[in-house]
Amino acid sequence: MAHSPPAVVLVRPREEGNVGAAARAMANMGLSRLIVVEPAAPFGKVAEMFAVGARHVLESALRVPDLRTALAPFRRIAATTSTRDRTLTVPLLTPRELPAWLAAAGAVPTALVFGPEVGGLTNEDLALAGAVVTIPCSPVQPTLNLSQAVLILAYELFLAREAGLGLPASAASADTAALPPATAAELEGLLGHLTEVLTRVGFARDESFPGVLTDLRQLAARAAPGSREVRILRGICRRTLGALARAGYGDG
Amino acid sequence: MAHSPPAVVLVRPREEGNVGAAARAMANMGLSRLIVVEPAAPFGKVAEMFAVGARHVLESALRVPDLRTALAPFRRIAATTSTRDRTLTVPLLTPRELPAWLAAAGAVPTALVFGPEVGGLTNEDLALAGAVVTIPCSPVQPTLNLSQAVLILAYELFLAREAGLGLPASAASADTAALPPATAAELEGLLGHLTEVLTRVGFARDESFPGVLTDLRQLAARAAPGSREVRILRGICRRTLGALARAGYGDG
Repeated sequence: MAHSPPAVVLVRPREEGNVGAAARAMANMGLSRLIVVEPAAPFGKVAEMFAVGARHVLESALRVPDLRTALAPFRRIAATTSTRDRTLTVPLLTPRELPAWLAAAGAVPTALVFGPEVGGLTNEDLALAGAVVTIPCSPVQPTLNLSQAVLILAYELFLAREAGLGLPASAASADTAALPPATAAELEGLLGHLTEVLTRVGFARDESFPGVLTDLRQLAARAAPGSREVRILRGICRRTLGALARAGYGDG
Repeated sequence: MAHSPPAVVLVRPREEGNVGAAARAMANMGLSRLIVVEPAAPFGKVAEMFAVGARHVLESALRVPDLRTALAPFRRIAATTSTRDRTLTVPLLTPRELPAWLAAAGAVPTALVFGPEVGGLTNEDLALAGAVVTIPCSPVQPTLNLSQAVLILAYELFLAREAGLGLPASAASADTAALPPATAAELEGLLGHLTEVLTRVGFARDESFPGVLTDLRQLAARAAPGSREVRILRGICRRTLGALARAGYGDG
């Protein structure tokens, strides 16, 4: 199970040819689970033409309304950017470092997230990932085609699987969570609960609130709490909300 | 000079979109020298559309009538195939092994050769290369798009350059030629000279001759003789032809 290959999540792709070419690259490297986040190009003749030998990947692709829905079932999520954003607090990986990070004990299922052809992933998108991958390339022309980015990551993962990479000792010890991390859906539940508390205490009216929420989301993704830890944190939220209600706070 | 990036040679590409996408992949990974072997698609709007940020690569591309002309100036040549042909006698490399092989002492300029979208390189094409690279991928869908193959090799070379790979000690000692290998044009001259001898002695009429010539070509590519060694071998051919002529052999 630890070697179960990741899903590929394409966020709002504009060109169906790129989706087809990405499907082909996935099939080349033994990946098959494709998720496309709306709004996205419909898959027509052009997508099929580019998806040489990978029509099954296109046909079984899932289309979902937003990235959170796409990521809900996954326990380890890596997102891609073309530029290293210094404000990110999650680990910044190279493609070659990705397999060991994804292979952390029991952290399946996993997902790789790729942004739209123009502009890439937003900070809000990136905040949902536990790590960010940047593909090394020439500073003069640093923007890879979408399917090319998919290929590079899939290639590194393929080589690692071929080499029988399990969990390297260093990655195992670096990993603080002994238990499988919570799913994105569980984290989302925690953040929803926390937002409820922050709303109740009036913080949600603060104009810095959206930024703070993004920071909290990143923190959660980076910390990768386990399911039990998420339940404990939600217990704290519940108790806090109960106490506030009993005190009549925020009702007036 | 030992780090001078290789030229990319696309042999008879059919789709201009692939040429454009290959040019983009080259620019992404810091390569700029593109050679296209005829017959090839003309570069029009489609090629330009795919060559995002790499129009300069397309515009400066050289178009040549055949692969031998394309390869004449190069001293180390690696060709790509999707299937490992057991009859090849040259080294079979993975993309990750390619940088060290190309970086052999003084072996610049170097070239990477890619076949047409359908069918790939012929055995005759492959015989011009000193090594053959196969990109590891799923046996279920082993055929990469042309620009994807270019990207993988260019990516591995980029990483090796970034890591400051010079000539690893092992590659240096494995390399028998202390001097830079001859150019493809010099090897071609040698083979022409040798063919003259073989013709003179009647061997060229043998029906196995074309196959033998391919074997000799592969042997020459693999042996990678230096310029001085080529001159010595051609001296032997010249002396042999002279002796045959004096003996009146082959005139009757």
